[in-house]
This record gives sequence, structure tokens and C-alpha cells, in this order.
Amino acid sequence: MSNPVEEFNSYRARMNDAILADNNKIIKRIFNLDTNAFAEGALDKKTKELLGLVASTVLRCDDCVKYHLEESHKAGLSKEEVVEALAIANLVGGTIVIPHLRRAYEYWDAVEEQAANQ
Amino acid sequence: MSNPVEEFNSYRARMNDAILADNNKIIKRIFNLDTNAFAEGALDKKTKELLGLVASTVLRCDDCVKYHLEESHKAGLSKEEVVEALAIANLVGGTIVIPHLRRAYEYWDAVEEQAANQ
Amino acid sequence: MSNPVEEFNSYRARMNDAILADNNKIIKRIFNLDTNAFAEGALDKKTKELLGLVASTVLRCDDCVKYHLEESHKAGLSKEEVVEALAIANLVGGTIVIPHLRRAYEYWDAVEEQAANQ
Amino acid sequence: MSNPVEEFNSYRARMNDAILADNNKIIKRIFNLDTNAFAEGALDKKTKELLGLVASTVLRCDDCVKYHLEESHKAGLSKEEVVEALAIANLVGGTIVIPHLRRAYEYWDAVEEQAANQ
Amino acid sequence: MSNPVEEFNSYRARMNDAILADNNKIIKRIFNLDTNAFAEGALDKKTKELLGLVASTVLRCDDCVKYHLEESHKAGLSKEEVVEALAIANLVGGTIVIPHLRRAYEYWDAVEEQAANQ
Amino acid sequence: MSNPVEEFNSYRARMNDAILADNNKIIKRIFNLDTNAFAEGALDKKTKELLGLVASTVLRCDDCVKYHLEESHKAGLSKEEVVEALAIANLVGGTIVIPHLRRAYEYWDAVEEQAANQ
Repeated sequence: MSNPVEEFNSYRARMNDAILADNNKIIKRIFNLDTNAFAEGALDKKTKELLGLVASTVLRCDDCVKYHLEESHKAGLSKEEVVEALAIANLVGGTIVIPHLRRAYEYWDAVEEQAANQ
Repeated sequence: MSNPVEEFNSYRARMNDAILADNNKIIKRIFNLDTNAFAEGALDKKTKELLGLVASTVLRCDDCVKYHLEESHKAGLSKEEVVEALAIANLVGGTIVIPHLRRAYEYWDAVEEQAANQ
Repeated sequence: MSNPVEEFNSYRARMNDAILADNNKIIKRIFNLDTNAFAEGALDKKTKELLGLVASTVLRCDDCVKYHLEESHKAGLSKEEVVEALAIANLVGGTIVIPHLRRAYEYWDAVEEQAANQ
Repeated sequence: MSNPVEEFNSYRARMNDAILADNNKIIKRIFNLDTNAFAEGALDKKTKELLGLVASTVLRCDDCVKYHLEESHKAGLSKEEVVEALAIANLVGGTIVIPHLRRAYEYWDAVEEQAANQ
Repeated sequence: MSNPVEEFNSYRARMNDAILADNNKIIKRIFNLDTNAFAEGALDKKTKELLGLVASTVLRCDDCVKYHLEESHKAGLSKEEVVEALAIANLVGGTIVIPHLRRAYEYWDAVEEQAANQ
Repeated sequence: MSNPVEEFNSYRARMNDAILADNNKIIKRIFNLDTNAFAEGALDKKTKELLGLVASTVLRCDDCVKYHLEESHKAGLSKEEVVEALAIANLVGGTIVIPHLRRAYEYWDAVEEQAANQ
């Protein structure tokens, strides 16, 4: 049965495939960079995911927030750590961020629930 | 029976509760400030609601626009006053604001309708 | 039978009518300018549509992207040309643009399909 | 002798003249709209200037803030009223607005000083 | 003797060198993509420069505008063509774009003057 | 003798004092929150500074970037760690971030130099 996490991931995967199949060199390389930039380096994976999450939140991109919430969960970050990052995003980005915070909280619960059911 | 205003308010209330229950000190204080900043002061309530509406519109946050539209209505602002504020937002923020204007007009009608039915 | 392109256009037309009927002089003139700015001039129609598309994409306005995708198609631009413009938007605007790219690809297909069925 | 207000106004006037002399119809009309949108209407001049100020502040445009600070002063708004508007901008737009707040405070003092010396 | 175009290019070149010398793989690849994305393809060089210019203008990045103004001039675009692109940026991005328009006009003149003196 | 770091800090301190002396309750509380949000919690100080840095960079606020660069240095972060965070900001925020990257590199050097001279 479908859930918000699966729905998001399935649409994301389907459209990413369509974009990459289209073979535009610039877009393909940006997609590649996206994978590389969040790999372990001088900063560990957890820190990088939080950086991606905060960048996505202050730029108010719900889909990007969803992606980094799931990645943060996979990387073993706790809800408390994620929420401290979201609080910084809320402060830096202002109350305009609050509607995205609501959807982030909702999605985090869905991510936890899906993980519990696997 | 449900309507766009109730739907928005019910989701907003439910998720605000979830966020505040989570007890992050920074986020809670930002929520508190949000209540204080729009209270009567050197500027009256009506003016402050219009300021919140214009800020929300140029930053293109539909949920924030919805919230301030309903608050503007409750504060006794007329549609003409609200539209003059939206026109400034449209001019300052450009045509990129127009899709948000469409949804604002639609929501204002829903706010008026709901008020008429109470 | 309805499709994504018709749905978007029908909502857009209905709300634009409501806005223009409201008779705010500033908003009406901005709507007028929008028609004039994309008319053939020193730059041809195709180039102007691509400029509108890229501006809309980096500002991450899905409805504006939809509008300019359909206008680009009507102006005779090929998918390859449109995608090169979107690639510049993706590079200039960053990975935060990617979710809007997904929706743009999906909508372009709907535009092509609708054109094929007419 | 020159001061920050005169310097800003002189550069602004000189370049606006250059832009308008260039005779692009779209740009000229946008400049015209800018004058009209802030004229007394259903909302009074003071309120409109505050709306312009808050829109400029959350969009973080220092030159636009300067312009609306001087117009607000001319319209007879007090520092306390202007600061309450800036506080809403700070809350809605977040701490990212603070550097612009610093420059706004500095410029308001220059506006007051220039007015006192006239 | 120095001029605004040389000053900008010299700072830009010096700091780009410092960034690339630092050898961060992600940043280096983004710099590379920047060169590739604006090369002739399905769209010609002139169109791509205008796309870069409009993206930079609506995102209100003065340095990016300067760069694309000089590239547009090198690509043989006329002032009239460049101004039509800026007009679209002004309309889509709103009056908040005007201060950047002032600086763009000023810089275009400097680019033309420098080209005339070579 | 003055340097870029001292100049920035001195202007910042002077104007922050002017703002806080003005006694607007909302603004004062936002300033307070700013101190609290970056204090050690579930996330350590270093991680929080990097979050502030990335948020500031994608929102393209040079003064905020400067502040967090110095705080990052004080917290003991290495240049390599800071640059990995900036690379994520560059990727997420796009090439529009590059001019801010140039200034960030320049300022980091000034921060290191000042620290070496103390």
C-alpha cells in the first residue's frame, strides 16, 4: 500500500529517469555532482545531510526537504538533531519558513513510520 | 461540511500543535514572536496585517498569504484595501507573483463566504 | 476529457478574469505589460519565450514555467531547445531547481500530447 | 557638501534618466506604475509607503529600502512606526534581514539629519 | 589605467584562481559546467548569453549581470536586444530589479567604452 | 591598523548597539534567539556554525557569511571543512552563489591572517 514517502520517491525516480534519458550533458552532470557532494569527506555524511536539509529549508523547497529528511534518517540522525537544524533554518529564514516546517514535521513522521514497517 | 478555509486552518492547527509539542526552544519562541509582532502598537492591527500580507506575497508563500488574508478580514479590512496591498506586492515582486495572486483572490472569496455563513 | 494543460489553463483563465474584473488599475496594467513584453521586437518571439521560461525556472514558479512551456511549444521551439534553456536555469539556480525540472518535463509531455490530439 | 541621502538620490536620478531616455516601452511603463501604485487610494500614502518598505526589506534590496525610508519620512511617519514595520520584516524574513536592518537604521539617521539641515 | 570592467574582471580572475587552486572537486566541476552550458548548441551563443543575463537579473546578482553583459557584448548583441531582455527581467522580477537595472545600464556603457578604446 | 575583519566587526557592533538601544521588543528577541540557536545542543557548535554558513550562502547574504566564517574559525573548523560546506551551498544554490564564494574565500584568508597576528 502506498504512503507519502513511497509516493514521493516513486514520482522522483520516474521523472529523474525521464530527465536523465533525455541526455542533456549539463543536467546529467549536475545530477552526478549531487551524489558526490553529499558523500563522506572532510565532513561526515550526517553533517552533510543536515547542510542539505538547512539549505533546502531556507530556500523553501519542499521536495528537497523531503529528500534530505529521508537521507538524514537513513544516515542515523535523530529527530532532535534534525529539529535543531530546522530551528536554525527557521531563525535564519524567518516565519516564512513555518509552512515548510509543518510539512517537514509531517514527512519526518511518515519516514519514521515507513522505516518501522520495513 | 469542510471548505478551503477550514481545511487550511485545521491542518495548520494540527501541525502547529505537533511542532510546539516537540518543545524546541528556538522554534517555540519564533511562534510566540509571531503573535506579538502583529499586535496593536505604534501601528494599528490593520496596518500590521497588510504588512504581513505584502511580505508573504512578495516572498510567494501561499500559506502565509492565506493566513494574513483571513486575519485581514477579521481585522475589518475591505477587499479594496487588501487588493491595493496585493497590487503593491505584484508591482514590487513582479509577474512571478501573479499565480499567488490568483490563489489569493480565490481564498479571499472563501474567507468572505465562510464569514457570511457563520 | 480534461488533461493537465486544460486544467491549468482553465483555472488560470477563470482567476485572471476574476482579477481583471476587480478593476485595480495597477494589476490590470501589469497584466497588459505581460502581453506586450513577450511580443516580437528586437528579439524574436522564440527568444523571448525562452527568457520568460528561464526567469520563471530560476525563480521556481511552477505555474509560470507551465505557461511559458506551452507558449514555447506554440512558438515552434523544439524540446531540445527548451531543455538547453532549462539546463542553464538548473546550473544558474542550482539543484534546488531540480524538483521544478521534474514538473517541467512532465508538463512538456502533456503539452506535446495535447497538441498531437488537436 | 554631499551626504549619503544626496549621494543615493543623485545616482538614482542620473541612472533613472539614462534608463528612461533609452525609451524601452516596458521599462518606462513599469517606472510609471511605480509612481501610481504608491499614490493615495483606498489605503493612505503612509500605509502604502510602509508596505513598500516591508516588501523591500524582506526581499533584501538596500536601495529600495533607502528609497522607501526617505518617502516614509516625507510622508510624516515616525521612527517608531517605521521600526515596527521593520520588525515585522525581520520576523517574516528572518535573521538574514539583519544586515539590511543595520543599513536601514544608519540611513534613517541620515534622512533625519538631512531633513533637520534643510 | 583602470576602469570598472577591468576592475571587475581582475578581481573575478584573481579569486576564481584562488578558488580553483583550492581543488574542491565539486566547486571545480561547477566552474567547468559554467563554461560548457553557454557554448553553442541547439541554441546559439547569443540566445544563451541572454538567458544567463535574464537569470542573473531576476536573481539580482550584480556580478553575474556584469559578467553576462560583457559576454553579450562580445557575442555581438546590440544594446536594444540586451535592453529587451532586461525589460523582461524587470517585468518578471518586479521593481525590486530596478536598482540592478541602474547598475546594468552603467556597466553596459563601461563595456562599450572599453571596447571602443581597444 | 584596520583590516577587513575588524572593519566588518566594528560596523556590525556599532549598528547592533544602535538597533538594540532602540528597544523594539520583537527585534531584540530575534537578536537574542540568534545567540541561543547556535549554542551547543543535540548538535555541536561546529555543526551549527556550518549550518549557519550554508544557510547564509544559499540566501546570498555576504555579511551573514562573513559572520559565520569567523565563528567557524573560532570554533576550530578547518578550511577544508568550511570549503566542503561552501561546495554544498554552491551546488544547491547554483552558480549565482559564485560571486559570494569569491568574497567568502577572500574573507576567510583575512580571518586566518588576523588570527595569526593576535
